[in-house]
Amino acid sequence: MKLTIERSDLLNALSHVQNVVERRNTIPILSNVLIEAKGPEVTFVATDLDIEAVDSADAQVSSEGAITAPAGTLFDVVRKLPAGADVELELNPENRRLSIRSGRSQFALPTLPATDFQTMTGDDSAIKFDLDAGDLRRLIDKTRFAISTEETRYYLNGVYFHAADGDGKKVLRTVATDGHRLALADAPAPKGAEGLEGVIVPRKAIGEVRRLIDQVDGDVSIAVSETKIVFRAGRAVLTSKLIDGSFPDYARVIPKGNDKRLVIDNKSFEAAVDRVSTVSAERSRSVKLSIEPGKVILAVNSAETGQGHEEIECDYGEEPMEIGFNAKYLLDVTAQIEAEDAEFLLNDPASPALILDPGDAACRYVLMPLRV
Amino acid sequence: MKLTIERSDLLNALSHVQNVVERRNTIPILSNVLIEAKGPEVTFVATDLDIEAVDSADAQVSSEGAITAPAGTLFDVVRKLPAGADVELELNPENRRLSIRSGRSQFALPTLPATDFQTMTGDDSAIKFDLDAGDLRRLIDKTRFAISTEETRYYLNGVYFHAADGDGKKVLRTVATDGHRLALADAPAPKGAEGLEGVIVPRKAIGEVRRLIDQVDGDVSIAVSETKIVFRAGRAVLTSKLIDGSFPDYARVIPKGNDKRLVIDNKSFEAAVDRVSTVSAERSRSVKLSIEPGKVILAVNSAETGQGHEEIECDYGEEPMEIGFNAKYLLDVTAQIEAEDAEFLLNDPASPALILDPGDAACRYVLMPLRV
Repeated sequence: MKLTIERSDLLNALSHVQNVVERRNTIPILSNVLIEAKGPEVTFVATDLDIEAVDSADAQVSSEGAITAPAGTLFDVVRKLPAGADVELELNPENRRLSIRSGRSQFALPTLPATDFQTMTGDDSAIKFDLDAGDLRRLIDKTRFAISTEETRYYLNGVYFHAADGDGKKVLRTVATDGHRLALADAPAPKGAEGLEGVIVPRKAIGEVRRLIDQVDGDVSIAVSETKIVFRAGRAVLTSKLIDGSFPDYARVIPKGNDKRLVIDNKSFEAAVDRVSTVSAERSRSVKLSIEPGKVILAVNSAETGQGHEEIECDYGEEPMEIGFNAKYLLDVTAQIEAEDAEFLLNDPASPALILDPGDAACRYVLMPLRV
Repeated sequence: MKLTIERSDLLNALSHVQNVVERRNTIPILSNVLIEAKGPEVTFVATDLDIEAVDSADAQVSSEGAITAPAGTLFDVVRKLPAGADVELELNPENRRLSIRSGRSQFALPTLPATDFQTMTGDDSAIKFDLDAGDLRRLIDKTRFAISTEETRYYLNGVYFHAADGDGKKVLRTVATDGHRLALADAPAPKGAEGLEGVIVPRKAIGEVRRLIDQVDGDVSIAVSETKIVFRAGRAVLTSKLIDGSFPDYARVIPKGNDKRLVIDNKSFEAAVDRVSTVSAERSRSVKLSIEPGKVILAVNSAETGQGHEEIECDYGEEPMEIGFNAKYLLDVTAQIEAEDAEFLLNDPASPALILDPGDAACRYVLMPLRV
């Protein structure tokens, strides 16, 4: 194997795949990236056996072939090479080292045979559709914060993608929940997505896809089979195993009859929650909202660390009520609100609150209250 | 105690002192800041018993008094208050809580009596002088990276300040060393500093002084006694205990007869060291320099992680030689070089190298070689 490639193309392709590689591996080849030179391009593949990332770049291939080399070291070396340089990659047949040459820099990395590298098998996807990259970013950003980190509830350790009915229109919907809060986002269902029954994409894959599409304009191709989901953006392909479990019936969790409507300036509310929670004991982070017509009082009361008290104007026309929330969960939601105001739909102090964003009606947030 | 103060003045004063407070304390009052309202100002004091930081700000004091309150919480609350606000601090005599009021925000923090707070005793300083803040920044920046972290060699855990003879002129000199490398910086000795025999200022105090003077123009007043050093900048005062030990005779370590002179472009050399060390095994980080007239070859050779090889032009007219250094230590020095070129004065592969900065002749760096 021998090829020459522009340093920026090489860096770009490697940066799309190398993050999948876990830093500590008991199986040595999982630290490596597969490098495959064929025709006018070179392809890089990285895997942690659950997620596989592939990207290709144009290269002058003078000798086809494939090999694996340490992903982290290769990425770091290329990253540190001067911008604008050409890089030559060559497998030395004698010592089986991968040589990297650029200008007056020369490196030799240990390799493992490409035949030992495990790639994910071909495409048996039943459902295929193209989704606008901006829509995918939104579907991820508005929900991922609510993914559970409890490993025992593995079926909550991801974002649930499925086709749903959104006010009479077919939508592609993402949902994440950790049992204490829930986030839901809809986008118009692209052609071909209507039949998506529901798959759970694991947290790490969500992070990798988000990174991959961060700068992408246009469409991302998505293909879903029973066990896998594949995201394609340009020449980059990310394949992830799905979480094999049943996502809970989230629709039951979304309150329907909450008729007490509180409208509050989101930035002021966010700042007040942030301030008042400064004095809350680290664990519970509970903030009490005392809501009455015209104002909300936020209060934190900790015997150990002190009291905090904030007052904010609001629009509210119902009976006064008191309800408590986890401050961090409140801030996670306020961070997602696009509009000037946040809209809370409440029922009673023991029932979940529904939070809406007047600036993005296709998102809904549910927060379980805390006893205060 | 009751006073009103501008939020920005309060934040500024607290930010100068609160960093001294250790995050975890077994003695509760050490988590607190002393607040003393007297005359037209309020003074804040924080201590870890080794370092004391004091700062004052103008305030409208309606009732004089003193109290202590949790430094971290107070700082966080004030930081999160909106810019431009006035803040009222008041000790509630009934529940002994410190109330903080600003706009519609209201906090109450637990307190401990001011009488329990231990401040450092008065000024028995024998040596006093004023030093330009820019000179002090330079004296610190050019040496602190070489401070030892080995706690057993406690007398190396700081920067050594003393008056010295620098090419016939009286200078104020800082030195730091960890036994593997040494850094030395001189500044013209200010009036009154000529008698400074040598004190070791601990690492944490160095960091705090550096933070304190980061934006300061003009002079910093320094006062040194047998056990303490005091830095004054504006109304802020930082007092630190000195390390009670003997700093080694560093002059013996600085090579005098090194007559092999290597001049090399500093930025190219820095980039090459950084690149080539990517493949070095994490611990030793050893880089071999093969120096010959016209070029230096940098090489790293690790059986496990691979080889790296770089070539750089240089100015060198002596017999070829090979010498090894710790890559991180090389990079610490190249980061300090102001000139385009770095100048190495070498003797043989087993003797320390002297590194000079043509852009700042008052600094010297010594590196022990590694066997390669």
